[in-house]
Amino acid sequence: MARPQNDNFLRALLREPVDYTPVWLMRQAGRYLPEYCETRRRAGSFLNLCKDPGLACEVTLQPLARFGLDAAILFSDILTVPDAMGLGLYFADGEGPKFERPLREEWAIRDLEAPDPNVHLRYVMDAVAEIRRALDNSVPLIGFSGSPFTLACYMVEGGGSDDFRTVKTMLFERPDLLHRILEVTTVAVTDYLNAQIESGAQAVQIFDTWGGALPAHAYREFSLQYMERIVAGLKKSHDGERVPSIVFTKGGGQWLEAIAAIGCDAIGLDWTTDIGEARRRVGDKVALQGNLDPMALFASGETVQKEARRVLDAYGAGSGHVFNLGHGISQFTPPERVSALVDAVHQYRR
Amino acid sequence: MARPQNDNFLRALLREPVDYTPVWLMRQAGRYLPEYCETRRRAGSFLNLCKDPGLACEVTLQPLARFGLDAAILFSDILTVPDAMGLGLYFADGEGPKFERPLREEWAIRDLEAPDPNVHLRYVMDAVAEIRRALDNSVPLIGFSGSPFTLACYMVEGGGSDDFRTVKTMLFERPDLLHRILEVTTVAVTDYLNAQIESGAQAVQIFDTWGGALPAHAYREFSLQYMERIVAGLKKSHDGERVPSIVFTKGGGQWLEAIAAIGCDAIGLDWTTDIGEARRRVGDKVALQGNLDPMALFASGETVQKEARRVLDAYGAGSGHVFNLGHGISQFTPPERVSALVDAVHQYRR
Repeated sequence: MARPQNDNFLRALLREPVDYTPVWLMRQAGRYLPEYCETRRRAGSFLNLCKDPGLACEVTLQPLARFGLDAAILFSDILTVPDAMGLGLYFADGEGPKFERPLREEWAIRDLEAPDPNVHLRYVMDAVAEIRRALDNSVPLIGFSGSPFTLACYMVEGGGSDDFRTVKTMLFERPDLLHRILEVTTVAVTDYLNAQIESGAQAVQIFDTWGGALPAHAYREFSLQYMERIVAGLKKSHDGERVPSIVFTKGGGQWLEAIAAIGCDAIGLDWTTDIGEARRRVGDKVALQGNLDPMALFASGETVQKEARRVLDAYGAGSGHVFNLGHGISQFTPPERVSALVDAVHQYRR
Repeated sequence: MARPQNDNFLRALLREPVDYTPVWLMRQAGRYLPEYCETRRRAGSFLNLCKDPGLACEVTLQPLARFGLDAAILFSDILTVPDAMGLGLYFADGEGPKFERPLREEWAIRDLEAPDPNVHLRYVMDAVAEIRRALDNSVPLIGFSGSPFTLACYMVEGGGSDDFRTVKTMLFERPDLLHRILEVTTVAVTDYLNAQIESGAQAVQIFDTWGGALPAHAYREFSLQYMERIVAGLKKSHDGERVPSIVFTKGGGQWLEAIAAIGCDAIGLDWTTDIGEARRRVGDKVALQGNLDPMALFASGETVQKEARRVLDAYGAGSGHVFNLGHGISQFTPPERVSALVDAVHQYRR
């Protein structure tokens, strides 16, 4: 299998020469697109949309039809893995994700098992294969998973949280139980990402959305350590092509040197870190992805262009930069600002 | 006026020798204390509690009656300043603070004026004086204010926000308007803190709760720059005693060197930064305050002790450390864990 026609994204991750700085946006298939809302309406619910490979493929391709993005990302939810573990994922109206059976009892934690992704997450693998066929080797497809700590937050809290009181109480008082959850989840995520790679994902990203809520030492022990194991267990190539990995800890700007040391190919940066300073800190160990503040897309097209250039200038010359937002795109973003952004990145010449 | 009988807190901020590491807790007078809830019930509302000097004094002293804390902090709200500017602060049930008249129109921004704290915030000055009388020189009293950027977030958004879309749109698109708000607010905060010092506050803290939500360059331009002006404008001593200043940017762990350079005496650290590493980075420029994860107080007394020691060990030998949480204490904290924490800090011997 040859590389995609436009492989700037993969080349940037591997720090090979690129034609221009490639760009994709976290949550690029999302509610800011009217056509996404239309498909979601047809699906009946967000979970139906995730679980139907045809519809997941449809929404994955929508932003690519509008904007000259350099990568597609599998449309799915980060909580498919705990759902497959039997926790019962559901979405209460306007409340975000919830689990019917949060993981708090010692017996339930001892009983936790990693699911077989090719059985219990078949719909994800089918979506990956269908998207690859539809992309027809135009741009690469990114697979992804939540990090073990981030998944554990939802699994133990039973949903979102603004203080992570339940999972942190476990962390401080019963670290053995939290480690047990993280160990099983690490196996599950490794298997899940490898199955995505075997189904056609050409790069993978680990979303560590909540690792940045931890004290520095706990980040290493409860989040980074497990991401390191996952990266070590990932298939490094498939069909003769390297499959690069990206680790994104939101709020992890203080820990870039440690993240760069775990063996991943690239680090995702939120918008609080200066990408030029980040580059000086990690040297030539990894590529960097990011890091425009998603709120910059509420300014005028001219300002969007200026702010995009600020990020590009800060990174500086040479390959190794994948342009992205520092977090998922807001549902309120005017789509025409995304056009302005993608054009600004592609037209930029150093 | 002599220093308080227990002046370990002031000495630690000035990096003078201490008898032991002093400790106070952000939001130490708060809902986790049943006696606080009782006084608040009597007050009728949170705002009444803030605006009645007698009741504000009463709740300020409550945690000191229970725990051997080394400082008192004025009980007030960070939004008193914009309230005095005429924005109309109110608290909707279970919704957090709101403003009746958010600051969005250019004419309203041009008309904004710094209030005279001795007139429009007289109730705060009266509370400071009354608390000082009640403390009878036992421990020092800390005055405080929100940072200009943090206040501007609430003023422009009209309340709390999870993405700061309105204020950031102004930042990117009309930085002139945001700078105008920040300039007026900087004068207001400087006057407000100086009036607190003249009324008896023996140290002051600037709470920059939302500065950490900014891109690095914007943090310098829209938050740190204004805090630097405030620190430069603060009375450095009163009644012959130094009045140290503490700057706390939540999520500011990446920018400690820059914060240390603005002339403050101490930097507050949230729980994501290793305090030992922070000390190496800022050298002997400033003292450090922090930085236990407030969620550690949900573990057993034994674990609380262990986690407190971890912070104390990380800071290491020598003065310059004020023990605190990395953020305000949770309303759900069992008060007996605070006893365990204060005892652990005081009994610690290096």
